[in-house]
Formats: sequence, C-alpha cells, structure tokens
Amino acid sequence: MLITHLVGVDTSSIILMSFNTNMRVLSVFLLWLMVYVRGGHAGTTCGFKSCNNVEDGMLNVHLVPHTHDDVGWLKTVDEYYYGARLDIQRAAVVYILDSVIPQLLQNPSRRFIYVEIAFFWRWWEEQTEEMQTTVKQLVNEGRLEFTLGGWSMNDEGATHYNAIIDQHTLGLRFLNSTFGQCAHPRVAWQIDPFGHSRQQASLFAQMGYDALYFGRIDYQDKTTRLNEKTMEMIWKGSPENIGVTSDLFSGTLFNGYGPPSGFCYDIACQDPPIMDDVRMHDYNVPDRVAAFIAAAKEQAKHYTTNHIMMTMGSDFLYSNAHTWYKNLDKLIKYVNQQQMNGSSVNVLYSTPSCYTYHVNRANQSYNTKEDDFFPYAIKPHGFLTGFYTSRPTLKGFIRDANNRLQIVRQLHVLANLQDSNDSFSKIFQLEEAMGIAQHHDAISGTEKQAVARDYADRLGRALITVEDVVLEGLARLLPNGSVTFPRSTSCGGLLPNVCKVPPTTTKLQLIVWNPLTRPTTNYIRVIVFTSGWTVVGPSGEQLQYDVFDVSGGGKEIIIPASLPSLGFSVFFLNTQQGSPNSGPHVPVRQTSVADKVVGNKIVSLVFDGTTGRLKQMNNLQKNISMYLEQELQYYLSYNGDCHDDEHQASGAYIFRPNHTTTETFPRQLFNTTYIQGKVVQEIRQVFSPWASQTIRIFEDKSYVEVSWAVGPIPIEDKQGKEVISLYKTDLRTHGLFNTDANGREMMVRRLNHRDTWHLNQTEPVAGNYYPVNSRIYIQDTTRNIQFTVLTDRSEGGSSLRGGEIELMVHRRLLMDDHLGVGEPLNETGDDGKGLVAFGSHYLLLDTIPASAARHRLLAEDIFMKPMVSVSEADHTFQSWSDLYVTNRSFIQKSLPEMFTS
Amino acid sequence: MLITHLVGVDTSSIILMSFNTNMRVLSVFLLWLMVYVRGGHAGTTCGFKSCNNVEDGMLNVHLVPHTHDDVGWLKTVDEYYYGARLDIQRAAVVYILDSVIPQLLQNPSRRFIYVEIAFFWRWWEEQTEEMQTTVKQLVNEGRLEFTLGGWSMNDEGATHYNAIIDQHTLGLRFLNSTFGQCAHPRVAWQIDPFGHSRQQASLFAQMGYDALYFGRIDYQDKTTRLNEKTMEMIWKGSPENIGVTSDLFSGTLFNGYGPPSGFCYDIACQDPPIMDDVRMHDYNVPDRVAAFIAAAKEQAKHYTTNHIMMTMGSDFLYSNAHTWYKNLDKLIKYVNQQQMNGSSVNVLYSTPSCYTYHVNRANQSYNTKEDDFFPYAIKPHGFLTGFYTSRPTLKGFIRDANNRLQIVRQLHVLANLQDSNDSFSKIFQLEEAMGIAQHHDAISGTEKQAVARDYADRLGRALITVEDVVLEGLARLLPNGSVTFPRSTSCGGLLPNVCKVPPTTTKLQLIVWNPLTRPTTNYIRVIVFTSGWTVVGPSGEQLQYDVFDVSGGGKEIIIPASLPSLGFSVFFLNTQQGSPNSGPHVPVRQTSVADKVVGNKIVSLVFDGTTGRLKQMNNLQKNISMYLEQELQYYLSYNGDCHDDEHQASGAYIFRPNHTTTETFPRQLFNTTYIQGKVVQEIRQVFSPWASQTIRIFEDKSYVEVSWAVGPIPIEDKQGKEVISLYKTDLRTHGLFNTDANGREMMVRRLNHRDTWHLNQTEPVAGNYYPVNSRIYIQDTTRNIQFTVLTDRSEGGSSLRGGEIELMVHRRLLMDDHLGVGEPLNETGDDGKGLVAFGSHYLLLDTIPASAARHRLLAEDIFMKPMVSVSEADHTFQSWSDLYVTNRSFIQKSLPEMFTS
Repeated sequence: MLITHLVGVDTSSIILMSFNTNMRVLSVFLLWLMVYVRGGHAGTTCGFKSCNNVEDGMLNVHLVPHTHDDVGWLKTVDEYYYGARLDIQRAAVVYILDSVIPQLLQNPSRRFIYVEIAFFWRWWEEQTEEMQTTVKQLVNEGRLEFTLGGWSMNDEGATHYNAIIDQHTLGLRFLNSTFGQCAHPRVAWQIDPFGHSRQQASLFAQMGYDALYFGRIDYQDKTTRLNEKTMEMIWKGSPENIGVTSDLFSGTLFNGYGPPSGFCYDIACQDPPIMDDVRMHDYNVPDRVAAFIAAAKEQAKHYTTNHIMMTMGSDFLYSNAHTWYKNLDKLIKYVNQQQMNGSSVNVLYSTPSCYTYHVNRANQSYNTKEDDFFPYAIKPHGFLTGFYTSRPTLKGFIRDANNRLQIVRQLHVLANLQDSNDSFSKIFQLEEAMGIAQHHDAISGTEKQAVARDYADRLGRALITVEDVVLEGLARLLPNGSVTFPRSTSCGGLLPNVCKVPPTTTKLQLIVWNPLTRPTTNYIRVIVFTSGWTVVGPSGEQLQYDVFDVSGGGKEIIIPASLPSLGFSVFFLNTQQGSPNSGPHVPVRQTSVADKVVGNKIVSLVFDGTTGRLKQMNNLQKNISMYLEQELQYYLSYNGDCHDDEHQASGAYIFRPNHTTTETFPRQLFNTTYIQGKVVQEIRQVFSPWASQTIRIFEDKSYVEVSWAVGPIPIEDKQGKEVISLYKTDLRTHGLFNTDANGREMMVRRLNHRDTWHLNQTEPVAGNYYPVNSRIYIQDTTRNIQFTVLTDRSEGGSSLRGGEIELMVHRRLLMDDHLGVGEPLNETGDDGKGLVAFGSHYLLLDTIPASAARHRLLAEDIFMKPMVSVSEADHTFQSWSDLYVTNRSFIQKSLPEMFTS
Repeated sequence: MLITHLVGVDTSSIILMSFNTNMRVLSVFLLWLMVYVRGGHAGTTCGFKSCNNVEDGMLNVHLVPHTHDDVGWLKTVDEYYYGARLDIQRAAVVYILDSVIPQLLQNPSRRFIYVEIAFFWRWWEEQTEEMQTTVKQLVNEGRLEFTLGGWSMNDEGATHYNAIIDQHTLGLRFLNSTFGQCAHPRVAWQIDPFGHSRQQASLFAQMGYDALYFGRIDYQDKTTRLNEKTMEMIWKGSPENIGVTSDLFSGTLFNGYGPPSGFCYDIACQDPPIMDDVRMHDYNVPDRVAAFIAAAKEQAKHYTTNHIMMTMGSDFLYSNAHTWYKNLDKLIKYVNQQQMNGSSVNVLYSTPSCYTYHVNRANQSYNTKEDDFFPYAIKPHGFLTGFYTSRPTLKGFIRDANNRLQIVRQLHVLANLQDSNDSFSKIFQLEEAMGIAQHHDAISGTEKQAVARDYADRLGRALITVEDVVLEGLARLLPNGSVTFPRSTSCGGLLPNVCKVPPTTTKLQLIVWNPLTRPTTNYIRVIVFTSGWTVVGPSGEQLQYDVFDVSGGGKEIIIPASLPSLGFSVFFLNTQQGSPNSGPHVPVRQTSVADKVVGNKIVSLVFDGTTGRLKQMNNLQKNISMYLEQELQYYLSYNGDCHDDEHQASGAYIFRPNHTTTETFPRQLFNTTYIQGKVVQEIRQVFSPWASQTIRIFEDKSYVEVSWAVGPIPIEDKQGKEVISLYKTDLRTHGLFNTDANGREMMVRRLNHRDTWHLNQTEPVAGNYYPVNSRIYIQDTTRNIQFTVLTDRSEGGSSLRGGEIELMVHRRLLMDDHLGVGEPLNETGDDGKGLVAFGSHYLLLDTIPASAARHRLLAEDIFMKPMVSVSEADHTFQSWSDLYVTNRSFIQKSLPEMFTS
C-alpha cells in the first residue's frame, strides 16, 4: 500500500465530520485547528522545497538534529525551562533554544526540529523583536522545523481523546498565529511515549499529519519488524469507522530516538569528537568515518528505501548546540568525501518531513497495521503497564479538569464574553495547564512526586482563575432583564472543595450546567450543615431528595436534577425545620441470612445473605441475569533492587506482580451495610480499614455505580501493593475482551496474543494489561450478554480468566523501577500518609447489540458531567424567578444520540 | 608600601641586566620577550581605558569571567582541546573559545580573560580569517583580555627558571606577533599551582607584569591573612639581589578561583539560574540578589579597598559561555537595580587588570613579603610536598630536554640556519612540548599515568624532530671549506638512546657541544661493543680514558673532554686491537677491615673498612674534614582510603609518611665495590635488589657524584614507599637549611617555622619539605663549613635533624590522595613493572664564602651539560682535520664567572 497522506489531502472536512459524531461540543473550539489544517502548506517557499539535496543513487542518511524536552518529569516544567535544579537533572530548555538559533544561522544547510510548544512558547515570549524576526526567517526557510507541534508530546496510554485534541490545538494555534503556514508540522513525533494508541494515529491522520514516528515499541515486536523489514507501515487508525481517511504512514525509529552509538556530540555525551587536525595525537577522522558508514549500512538493512533517518539528539540535548553542529558539519564533510573513493553513503542535514517526502518519492509498498502498540515491554519482565494506573488521583483530577475546561469554554462562548476581564488569558491558563498535564510523564504518573504536585498545583490555580469566567458567564446568562447577578455570594464550582456552604446558610441556589448536547438526569450533591431543607426545582416543583451523613458533621443532600441540553437549571434549597424530608437515612447492617436484592425497575443486584457479598446482577427490562462476584484485592509487587531483568521491580512505569495470584482481604473484616434512600440505594462494603466501596443504584438509572476508596495502602510490611477491583461473572468469554482507545473507539484484546507477531508471553498478568481510559467489556456471544465496566479516569485493566474483568485502581510501591524516575511510586499526602484514592466504576449489563449505545452515552455522562455553581442569595424560587432565568438550553434542538458500535 | 608596577615602568632593561648575570645564554632567546615588554601598552585604545565604569562611592564587585584550562591532567592536552574522553572529564577547550566569542559580541560590557596560550594558539590556527578579525577587534577593545599569557600556567615547585622564562616567551611572542600591544598581559595569574615561588614572582616583576594573583596558599596562612586583611601584599621577589625592581603587587583570591557559593552559572554547575519571569513558579530574583549582596559584603570585609574581584569560572568552564553571560547579565542588572533602594553594591564585568588598576587608584599601603608560599598545606595532614618528587623520570627528562632545547637554539643561531628546512617549526615543536611540560600538572607529576606518557611522548617526538636541526647546524659549522659533512653516518645525540653505535664500528668521531659560555671539562661517555680503542683529542693528542662493562655486553668508554666556550670539540675513537687501554677495569670487592680512602687531589671520601659505608668527606685543598654518612632509606606511605583529614593518604600531590622515622635496608644485603680507573674512581653500593648507587670521583673535579638507581619499588606488601637519600653530617645547623628557588636564588628554610605566621606544625616530616630544584645546603657557621648537595632534577628535600640533608628521589604509592587525579602514583614501565628511576646528586664540601661560586658553576655544568653527536665517518684525526674543524668557540672571549651569593 502506498503512503496516501503526503501532500494536499484536505482532511479538515473529515475532522469536522468525525467530530460531529461524538465530539460535537469540541468542534466549536477546534475552529483554529481546522482553519490551520485547511491552509496547508501548498504554494509556500518552505516545506519540501527547502529540503537539502539527496543523491538518488546512494544511501541517503538523513541526520535529524532534535531535542526531546519533557514537559516535566524529574523536574517541574519551570525547572526544566530555566535549568534550575541541575543537581536533579542536567536539563535547561532555555539554553537549548538560545543556542540552536545562532548555530542555524551559521550554516544554511543545518536543520533543527522543535517539538514541545509548551517550552517554545515561553521562550518566544522572552525574545526581542529582532530575534523573533530571525526565527521567523529560519522557519520560513525550513531550517527550523516544528514537528508534532502539540503543547506537549502527550501520553497515549492514559489520555482522553478530547484532551489530546485540545493540547494539539493549543500548540498548533500558537504556531499558526505566530508563524503562519511554514510552521505547520507535517509529521507527528511520539518518540518517547510508552506504547502507542491506534486512536492517536487516527487523530493524527484526521489532523492532517503526513506521517508518525515513534521510538518505543515492544522488544519482541521490534525484533520481528527489524527482521522482516517492517519498521515502517501504514497504520489504519479507524479501520472499521472512518476507514482510509484515518490511514497514516508510521515509522519505528531505528535507535530509539538517540544517535547511533558513538555519534552523540552533545556536551553531555562522551563520544569522541571528530578530531581532524592531522598534527595532533588523537586524529580520528578515518576511524569515525568508517564507523559511521558501518552504522548507516547496518541501519539501512532494516528499511526498504535508500533513505534512512538518524535521530541526532535525545533528552534535553542541544543545550550547547554548537558542539553538535561543529562535529556534524565535519562528519558530513568527511563521510561524503569518501564518495570520491567509491563510498555510496550520502549524509545530509534533514528533518522528519524531508525524510518522509523522500520515502514517499520512493513509491514503496508497506504492510498495514490495524491493532495498536499496547502493551509496551522492554524485556521479558519489563512491561510498562503499571503507568496505566500510576497516580490515580492525578489522573482523576486531570479528567475532571478537562470536563471543567470544556464547560468554561462553553460558558465563554455562549455568554459572548470575548476578552472581557482578560478571559482569554484566564482560559489559556487552564488550557496551558491541561496541555502540560497530557505530557507522557504527567498524566502517566511517571514523574517524581514533587513534579506531580506541581502539575496538580498548576491545574488547581488555573481552575481558581477561571472561576471568574464562570461567574461572569453566569452573570450574563442568568438575569431576565437588567438586574445584576449576585456574584459576591456565588461560587463557580470548578474545584470540588471550593464551593463550601457555610453552616449558617438557610437559602441556597444550585445553578447546574449540563455540557452535554442532550438532556440528562444527574444526581447532584451538596454538603450542608443543618437539617430540614426543602428542595424546589427550576419549575417551582418540590423535589424528592436523600440525605446522608458524611464525615465532619455535614450532611450530603442528593438531588435528582433533570437538566436541559447544553444549558442550565436552577435548584432552590431552603431550610424547613421539622420537615419530614430532613432526617438522614439510617444505615441498616445486614443481619439476616436471606439474600438481599437491591435495585430499581431497570437493574438489580443480589447480595449473599450470609456473607454480604455481591452474587448476581440483573437487567430487569431485558430479563438478563448474570452471576457477578466483585471485590477489592491486591497484587504484591516484585521488590527487585537492580536493573537486570531478573530483579526488575514494579514501579511507576512497570507492573510486575510477585505472583500471578492476588491477595484477598480477610473475610472476617468484611462487612456490608444497606441504606435505602428515596432516590438512591447504597450498599457500603468495607474490606479493610483502607479499602472500601459504596455501591449505588439510582432510582431511574440503568447502571450500577461502584465508588471505591482505597488507601492509605499500608507498607509497614515493606511490600508494595497494587489494588484491583475484580469482577467475576459466569460469562464465557474465550480469552477475549475489549478496551477503549483514549475514550473513543474500542479495541479487541485477546489473552496472551498480539496481532502482528507470535508472542512469547513472559508476564501472565502484566503482559495482558491494557489501558482502560473509559471502559472495558466482555461478551458472551452464546448468551448475547455484554458486561461493561466504565471508569471515571484511566486505569489498567484486563480479563485474565474467562468471565472476569479486573481494573487496577491504586498502587503504592517501595522500589524504583530503574527507568529514570529515581523514586518509588510511594504517593503521600500533605500529612505524609499514603494517599487515599477515590473513584467510581459504572456497571452495565445488557445484550450485545444494545450495549454500545448505552456505554457510549454513559461514558459521555461521566466525562461531561454537570457543573454545580452555588449561590447563597436571599431568594426563594419565586423571588429568583422574577429576576433570573431558572432553566435554559442553548441549542434549539438536542443533537441525536447517534453512535456506531 | 604602594604598588609600583602599574603603568609604564619599563622593565626590559632590568631583565637584560639580570639575565646578564647568570642567564647569559638565555638572553639571546629572550629577544622577543624584551621587545614585547618594551613596547608596553602606552598610547593604545585598549588597556585600562576599556575597563567598565565603577562607582567610587560604592563597593565595586569586579566579576571576572574566566576558565582554567589545564594543559593536560586527567586527559592529554589534545583530549582536552577537542573534548575527547568526556567519560574521564567533562572538558573541551575548543568549545569554550568557540562559545565565548559570540557571547562577547552580544554585549559590549561583557568581558572574558584567557590564559593558556597552548590552547589558544591551537584554536586560533583553526579559525577563519573573518573570525580572526573579530577576535582581534575584541582584543583591541579590551573585551577579550589575555591574562598571564604563558604557554601554560607553569608549576612553581618543580620548574627551572630557564623553562619558566621560555614558556612565557613562547606564549607572549605568539600574542605579540598575532595581536600586538593590546594583547599584552598585564597580570600574572597563577590560580591553581600548589604553592608559590618567590623566584616566580621576581621573574614576573622583571617581565613587566603589574600584579600577580593566586588561588592556593596554606590554609593557616589564609586564615591569618583573612583575619589581618593581608590577602594582598607587595612581594619582594629578589630582596637581596635586584631589590625594588623585583617587587610585585600580589593578591590571594578570596574563593580559590571559583565563583561565590550559589553563583556558578556554568552548564556543569548546579546553582539556581536567575529566574526572572514573575509568572513562573520559581521566580527567585529577590533571593539571588540578597544572597549575592551578602556574599559581596562578606568578601569585602577581608580586603582593603572598595573593590573586590570575584572569579566567575573554574576548571574548563564556559564550554557553553551563554549560560554564564545570560545569568551574569541578569545578576548585574538586578543587583544594581537595588541601588535605587539604597544598596551600595555595584557589580560590573571586569578583568584582573581592571581590578588592579582600580586597586592602585585607591592608593593603599600593603605589607611586604620576602619569603615564599612553600610548602602548601590544605589541612593538618595535607601537605602538598609529595609532588616535589612525583614522577622523577619525567622530571628528569624535562630537565634534559630543556638543556637540549638551549643547545638546538644555539646551533640554529650560530649556524645561521634561519628557516632552512623548516627549522623554525621544528624548534617550535620542541618549544611547544616544553611549554606544555611546565604545566602545573605536567612536570609536577600530578597527572594521570597515561597523560604523563603523553608528555614524555611529545618531548621524545620533538627531540627526534630537532635532530635534523642539529645535524644541519653541524653540517654548516664543521666543514673547513666546501666539503660536505657526512650527515648520513651521523647522529645528533639529543636523546640518550638514539645514537647507538653498531657493534662493527671501527671509527667514531664524537662532536661534543658545550653550551656554556666558559670552557669546561666534562666526562663524556660512549657505549661500544668491541675492545682496543685509541682516543684522540681535537688537537691530535692521545687521551687517557676508562672502560667499564655495562649490562647488555657493551662497554662504556669515559673520556675526559676539555671543551671550548660556547662551541665544540671533536674526539676521535679508532679500534686498536691489543692496546693496553683496551681492557675494562676489574671491580674490587672490599674485603679488608682497614678504612678505604678514595679521592683525587681535591676531594676524598673515607669508607668504613668493616661495613663499606661512607663515613667522611674531605676537602683536601682547604683541609676540611666532615663526618658524612649516606644511605638510601624510605618512608612508608600513609594508606588512608577516604578524603577526610584523618585518613588522608600520601599521593601524587601529598606527602604523608606513616611515621616520622624511615625504614632502612637490611645491613646484611649491603655491599660496596671499588673500581680504580684512570680518570674516574667508582664506588658501587648495593642496598637491596631495587636500590643501589655509584659514587664517582673524577680525576680533576672537586665534587663527588652519587648516581642512584631506585626501583622497581616493591609493593607486594601493599605498602607505598617514598625513597630518600639521607646525608648525615656532624655540622651544627641549628634547624636552618637553604634550598634554591627554581634553580636561581637561594631561600633560607627554618625547621617548623614560617616567616609570616605562627605555624602550628602538624606534619613533622612533610611539613618541613621544600622544593629542591637544583641544590640544598647546610652550614656550620662556627666551623665555616658548607655542605651542598646538587640535584639533576627537582626533588623534595629537607633537613629534619641537625646536620642532615635528605632528598626524596622516588616514590611509588598505592592510594589516590583524593585531589582529583583519581589514580595512585604507581608508575610502571611498558613491561608493567614499577618504574626504575636513575639520577645523580653532586656533593660539594667547602668553606661558606667559597661555596656559592662553586655550587652555582656546578649547577650550570649539570643543567647545561654538553651534547655528544656521533659520526661514524671513515676518518682518522688527520684525514678529518684536512676537511673539518676539530675545535671551535663561538665567542671571542669567555664570559666571566660572576656570581653573588
């Protein structure tokens, strides 16, 4: 098959189309990206015309000078930018960009690519106008080329497609508005992420990239591809969905993303420089030239054209670009001089896009690939499947912040705020924090503890900043006439703990924003400190609600809120002392031996009367019954203390359990408590002092919510632990299960199997783990039953035995896994104790044909949950209604619930 | 006292004058230097006029950006230049110079000083004409300033003054011819050498330097000076000789030669950069400004003017100069901004000469100093007195090569070779190797083993190269008419092992060059393989000679050669089978019990009849008898294995014996053999299989030669050993002894005493060691006896007990002394065995008044020994005389033997 995406394919319409299916809300904010892609690079002077000459009859070695600048990892993004904390890592991005530009100016054939716009943007802002003009010139001449061009190089295992698009939009928008068409990145560059998602490739294809290159694939996969000369391929990003428009030429780099051994010319490397003064003792030109030609020929053996790409750079290299270019100039000169002696190797400065251009010219055929590159193993006991779960609280916070960002942008547009009160830059602060958070050492959880705190801190600050935008938006949208919205007594509700209701409050208005483009019902929660509340809905109707005691003396009120499409409803709470609604529910500890059935008219669960354990799930409408056990369990982590495969420890990246079997909590500690509410029924299960969960069934919902609370994971036994929620059913699943790709399409997974090579499975557990960004399901095709579990954040998951689903929800480790982070993943809170993680699973039981629509809608509900803003104005429903709107939708007609499987 | 050397003192005449005393030969080769110095810097636009402005009412902090580039240490000079072997040390000089120039161009207030011309010259040669023009402009504007400007920053403990002058001449000549007056270094910069010699200061003063700065002085000395504000002083370089013209303003740097703690902005440092974007998390301007002002005020407490100098650099720093200047620019900006808030600290880019200028303007008085800065201790058990002896074979080779270089230059001038056959560049190769060899990690012996080999290799190659010049010179000087000198059968004799006589040779001519400006007699040696030689002198007279068997089957012929002033004589050897002169001498083992007296008419030694040990030395002409024991002994080295003072080991730098007492060889192994020759009497003494010596008395010489051979020092006992030659006399010396300073003037030493502070002596042996570059003597003033021992290279020496002299001749250690070299000083030869060192001491016994002239003349004889060139032409004296000169002096009248004590 040929490369199809090289020049001029206008993919913008495809993007629009595909976004119209389940990315409707986003399409508004992707306007920049689309304009950008539509512009393309036709008719400009940069692009392929600026590539250095090749020699068609020779082996052309494309040297690609590049730096890989993690947007946070061992140091924070600020520390990396400025080069602070060099004791932690010798990395200073500002010096890289400072030093590359003068080097490019010295020799017009030199090239450099830059990737991470989060850094480039900071640097750009600090430059003089003169320097900016110089840089524009270099970009226009193709000497400085932007590659990828996202705000960061996002992780692919734990990210949501919405955030992936956002973070690319942010980077590409900066490039387009700053430089115009010549800065358009034509190549996606995912050289460091730990496994590659098909969805990512699909998005890249739809964004208009011509090619994708990556550095890390499974070691067995790489060996196979090297042997079979299939390092490059056509990746079909959405083969069953949008088809050919998602095809992308994709290449595996030969040497990770580093230079060939012996040719690293960075000040941080130790390879011999080209010493070309014949008078000196260490003259080494013949030796280096011979070694380089040998390296080039070796690499060329594994690729199909007479072009190969050598990545001349690595992590944070080029802080003194001079040392590179001085030696690369010499290398090119002396290697090419050998052509006079019959050498057929031609070296040139190049870029990934120039390489791609020449590979395309070669008109070769390539294998196609339809699966993805998960999981990523580096050795028999080194599967990077731990990071799917690492730092679950950060992963959850980022997912929440994404939801908040979309809502803020909706409010900003719909209230027509423009740049009122600096709102563009306020939103940018959140966009920027989110762009950084998608980095492959941020949301992945593979950063140092201090850096993880910095990511969360950035998001927290940004959310506080955009509270202003929310309140300003509401102030414009709420008033019925020229009245003023009481901002001073209001709270936007972006951060869970920001909107606290004072104990003395007697009147509350909850302004609940629904970001979905269809109506929804959601159970909203507010914590109060007094009793006897009346809850009135947006039409003046009194509503049923539940009250539960919460720790700290407060009471959680749960209100079923019917919300309009893309709009808001207002709910009114007034204290009514002595009201029959006022008392909290009394929990009932299970004492009988009869099985307990808890449910509504749609779904029910059966708990064993003796043990209190779940034993069955029923879809009452479809008459489906399924055996279902569920409990929290944990793996003991392998505590290796050296770097070799045998002693490889479980760590931030790697999941390596001690045994293939899990540990269970002592049965005698287990207890179950039932609480029967008006709108929700809760089953509270305690496994141990540090592991518990609440199962909820809402009055009109078809799903079961399982809210787990895990931590602090005890480590007094010097033993790392990785906690899973295990679901056991009686479905016959034949080793198959499905997981989502970045919250969008689904991927079929088969136990101990890879589609493109014969797997030698060396880790029966970790080697079968896959990223679960939003859902995982198993099917019994004979019984026509699908059991789906949705998550509220990315987790690692698998189905290791027939009928099972397991999801890893939290992990606490005591050993570093020797992949650079240099710390065990031992998360602690401000109190120094192990971090407690809270999260939810959502269970769906249905027929196979009906499941897809249900889990897709539910995933949207989870991912695009409402925002609850709180006002403490002295209003009743009536007095409020005189002045303000109580219910409003911003689309005339809700969009259809249109899904493919 | 005031600084006297600042501007316009024309010191060239002083140099000429002083060189005329005992540096006659050198004066010819100092022509460039003198022209250079005479030129001075008056009337140019560079110099002090180019200094940045100061604020007279404030504390002015002179930031001096600098790099300290060792001309070899852990890596060879080539490796340092190119940045090879970065695994050993992160150091690449080419990148330093490459990166500094563009930085200087960016901001006219920036300054940089460069010191080591060995590196600068290499770099300069590689530059384009355009870059050379740019650099000239920077030099002319005072933005790039050369400081010191020697070929290297020479060691002061083990160097000879002749080589010091040569290596400065080499650097200054390059600067003068390349850049002219603006490149004239006004400041000497000995920031790293391990102790400072008064002779060096005297030479600097005479060369016209305005000031000298150094980084290392004894820790007790430094504490005293800090407390007493005497960090700066007037050093009287030759107080009893040339007086005020040798005075030099000298300053001890506050912080070694590094920046204040927290302000190193090199890519290799870990200090926080100035982070001045207030939007970022790590904004630190107030913190850094406060810390800098505090550091400046702390330093200013210890100096006398309102100017202080901060050395902003260190070893091999500035390989990415950008990181320095970017942050220093900010530091200057933000610190000076505080002047608006009342700060009285003013920071500026400066140079040592600008600092000196402003200190001079301040018109302060300073203490004077008349002693030197030896020995240099860094802590109670860390005396850097081991390096006085470390690598004795390298020290010896360098001393020999210096002798050879002077002879080659004499021949080159006297034969008027000009640039015939590239002779300038051939001689330059030797000058350059010698310049490098004077470096404070070269001749000092404090380099790694591989680097020591490289130094020797450079000298060896250079000596082979200049053989051509010798032969070409002889070919011009020897012929009587238009005949050709038989070069093809000749050998210049620059390297000891180059001129080998084939076993079949029957005719030999020895052309013996005397580099001294007075006639001399020297005992020349040639190894032959047959017997029965007749030796004929330059006037046709037959000469007496001795023959000794040597190992390998050869015979060493020793011929007394009378040589003319600055010229040559030819000696003729022909085989005469059966001649009575032919047989070698038969050694006589001492068997009688009567004392053995060996001597000539001038000097005699008495050996104990029973033990064979030396017991007395007699000056027969002056009727002086002195008790004299002598033997080889050794210290056991302290084998510490960590860096703290208590565990400090003896190493390449540090001498730390295990005990204050030495080990002696077992008496039963000792034997003495006497050989009575015609021209020389030898006494051979064996102390052990690895320690022996030959004592020689020549027929008409007043000195006794003690040729020692030590090694391989055994280490099977895991014990380092430091071997001394101990001379015990009955002189009453009252704790006083004298050692030379760099082979020129003499320094008085007093046991456990320093002139300028009250010494707390913590190392009774090592703390009393001083450099002996050419001689050490003790005096008994009551008996009017002086006993002088001369050396053929630099050695450490002392007089630890009354009447004793000890000289350390060899050392082999098993521990690194943790001062950076990272290797124990465990020298091995190509065969992997411990290195054997060969050397000689020369003993003089005379009255005190008569001794000075004798040891000065003898030192010259040793240091300026003849060169023996060998011709195997088929000539007798007669046939040779018809064609060639046999005897010639190149000065009309020998120069007088004029010396002061």
